[in-house]
Amino acid sequence: MARDLTVTEVRLTPILVSDPPLLNTQGVHQPYTPRLIVEVVTADGTTGLGETYGDTTYLELARPLADRLVGRRVSDLNALFTDADEVAVDASRVSGQADVGGLRGVRTADKLRLSVLSALEVACLDALGRSLGLPVHALLGGKVRDAVEYSAYLFYKWAEHPRDVAAEKDDWGAALDPAGVVEQARTFKERYGFTSFKLKGGVFPPDEEVAAVRALADAFPGHPLRLDPNGAWSVETALKVAGELGDVLEYLEDPVLGTPAMAEVAARSRGAARSASDEGGGGRRTGVPLATNMCVTTFAEIEEAFTRGAVQVVLSDHHYWGGLRNTQHLAAVCRTFGVGVSMHSNTHLGISLAAMTHVAATVPNLHHACDSHYPWQSEDVLTERLAFEHGAVRVPDAPGLGVELDRDRLAALHRRWLADDGRLRDRDDAAAMRIADPDWVAPAVPRW
Amino acid sequence: MARDLTVTEVRLTPILVSDPPLLNTQGVHQPYTPRLIVEVVTADGTTGLGETYGDTTYLELARPLADRLVGRRVSDLNALFTDADEVAVDASRVSGQADVGGLRGVRTADKLRLSVLSALEVACLDALGRSLGLPVHALLGGKVRDAVEYSAYLFYKWAEHPRDVAAEKDDWGAALDPAGVVEQARTFKERYGFTSFKLKGGVFPPDEEVAAVRALADAFPGHPLRLDPNGAWSVETALKVAGELGDVLEYLEDPVLGTPAMAEVAARSRGAARSASDEGGGGRRTGVPLATNMCVTTFAEIEEAFTRGAVQVVLSDHHYWGGLRNTQHLAAVCRTFGVGVSMHSNTHLGISLAAMTHVAATVPNLHHACDSHYPWQSEDVLTERLAFEHGAVRVPDAPGLGVELDRDRLAALHRRWLADDGRLRDRDDAAAMRIADPDWVAPAVPRW
Repeated sequence: MARDLTVTEVRLTPILVSDPPLLNTQGVHQPYTPRLIVEVVTADGTTGLGETYGDTTYLELARPLADRLVGRRVSDLNALFTDADEVAVDASRVSGQADVGGLRGVRTADKLRLSVLSALEVACLDALGRSLGLPVHALLGGKVRDAVEYSAYLFYKWAEHPRDVAAEKDDWGAALDPAGVVEQARTFKERYGFTSFKLKGGVFPPDEEVAAVRALADAFPGHPLRLDPNGAWSVETALKVAGELGDVLEYLEDPVLGTPAMAEVAARSRGAARSASDEGGGGRRTGVPLATNMCVTTFAEIEEAFTRGAVQVVLSDHHYWGGLRNTQHLAAVCRTFGVGVSMHSNTHLGISLAAMTHVAATVPNLHHACDSHYPWQSEDVLTERLAFEHGAVRVPDAPGLGVELDRDRLAALHRRWLADDGRLRDRDDAAAMRIADPDWVAPAVPRW
Repeated sequence: MARDLTVTEVRLTPILVSDPPLLNTQGVHQPYTPRLIVEVVTADGTTGLGETYGDTTYLELARPLADRLVGRRVSDLNALFTDADEVAVDASRVSGQADVGGLRGVRTADKLRLSVLSALEVACLDALGRSLGLPVHALLGGKVRDAVEYSAYLFYKWAEHPRDVAAEKDDWGAALDPAGVVEQARTFKERYGFTSFKLKGGVFPPDEEVAAVRALADAFPGHPLRLDPNGAWSVETALKVAGELGDVLEYLEDPVLGTPAMAEVAARSRGAARSASDEGGGGRRTGVPLATNMCVTTFAEIEEAFTRGAVQVVLSDHHYWGGLRNTQHLAAVCRTFGVGVSMHSNTHLGISLAAMTHVAATVPNLHHACDSHYPWQSEDVLTERLAFEHGAVRVPDAPGLGVELDRDRLAALHRRWLADDGRLRDRDDAAAMRIADPDWVAPAVPRW
């Protein structure tokens, strides 16, 4: 006899979680970053968990979207999306300034809704799995691997946040030059066993970042490496870096902004590689593959990017794309067009890491280690953190996501959000940088 | 506590089912057509049902593919496909003559495997749903509509099969001219409530078929109409028909063979429509949409067809595409590229109709009534046939597919298969035509 899977309540809890002073082209991470924790409760007493971005724009949409879920069943996942279009999005949220300086790609009403819906979908899947006694991956067609590989996510960083700012201390130390980056990578490898490395670039002039990647290649020969300047470069700079690092990069991530520029880099990089190969220079004929989580972040952006050959790997963020089933759809589209797929990450906690791991386990064409900020997050809302072993997370086989909420931790992090005067409720890396450098303005791109 | 969903046995039962003398460009349906009925049995005693093509090529693959399923769980659907590549397909089955004169599109090893896997996947979903107490649509993210609309599938037909051939009699009478087609459509409408009509063409010279469609438009004004000559026409003929019927056709289905020819028809049809519109002729500016279940029948065929604008509607056959979840993936690809989606049908029974109905109920972008041969099948293996009401099938909410196997009927139809001397175990419309017309050779295309 089926249980009663009807949703009776959706609890939404915004929180602020500690974040180290990680640098990017827009500025630096604030000491605390907002996340939204979602609990979907069903009539049979099951609670499912979800997590997404917690900035106020998302919070505004979360309540009306959650209200539409009440009365539906947690298996009604398609209806979640067909309903969503009816929820209005404040126009100023769409056409106003880009999200976190553009770090999250295009900002459309649809994408904002999907970013919230993703947490509702994950919570529904968690509840459905718990109720049926099946892991979430089994609700997605079953895992095709037992562990999901992640990449070490290297950042240029300060040793600590500015002195006069409330913040937790981290034990990673500073990383502001090639030696610091290599040291950070060693720590990642020692602590978690990661064997591929991604460096968040766009912080220093390209030559310095090229030197850092070269130092990584020397320190970890044969390990896949990636560099991601978040679109900070011009086409010429991107081509120069691609030429210099082509022998060691697994892919170059968002070297430039926008599909036309990405397409130009891809085409000219291929052309250069082909010429070098024809002249007996050896090496690959295809150029450095380009990956993106900035120019293709919605289904609407795919057609142009794929037909122009602008990207070779799409880094899915299940929050942007509207959840785990949409991530599988994206993977199917990529497979159909011979484009690779892997996963992007913004600051997130264990609920989202579990969700990423479940869906990644079901995608046959996932051929690159996924990104995750999780090692940077010292705080979580789980009773037990997920662990990386040999650079991978074992796919949970317990019912649902396989994680448990620590209500005391959730309450504490929510109190921090309540106590905030509003300055931290919307991520703003440029504002954080201005505390250290009052003249800082988020640089226009291309920066170099 | 989860039940034991491990597959302990897969039963494969080939059958022959009665088929009326329906005409197409290759010949005529044989009096009996082969289908394969699949039963997947789990350790908890649940049995799930699936159905697919029953020609010997499929039967040869069914046993090795079924054997790989034993020991897996019915929720391990992704693994089903990653395993399949290891099953060898006899090269002569792939490179030999096209399937049923090309009526089923390209014939690749992958597609043959998928056509068999589809029945295993559906049977697994049926078993999983029965075991969990959930309808199959709930396992696919839930229905977004309560009924799925189907189109009346009109055929030119003889009153009966040739005299000296064993066959069941049908009560539809002959339809060999516009009046006969309209009469058949009236019967469809009276018996089942269908409000859209598809005519299988390619049988008579195009002018006669244009006259039949025009007669349908006069008899049923405002009803969506379709014409499908199975690629029997040249580009020029297709354009002529598109021009003559552009005002009444919902779409033109496979007027020509192959993506390049389809692309040419689509482009020139659009151009002609735009000129007519610019000259004040009114009407649509976009030409007659082209639908296909012949030039896009696999994921590998999508990229060329979509980037060339060759098709505006893909008619999915969940058997070809590898099941219900792959049909959802196909729908996602179509949605992403602004291409419509609906469903194709070959001769099938109630298990497949139930499967089609469940998946169609979950596809948000299904904007055309689906095809189904089901009204032509007087025989079935179910205890209770599915019913069309107002041209639609209600989406079953009972656990699994919501249909029950009639073992006596299955056994009787299997005995018919066993008794056959081999002539009917592979569908061959040209061979059937030669019984009436010994000189018949399946015409080369384009025929007109």
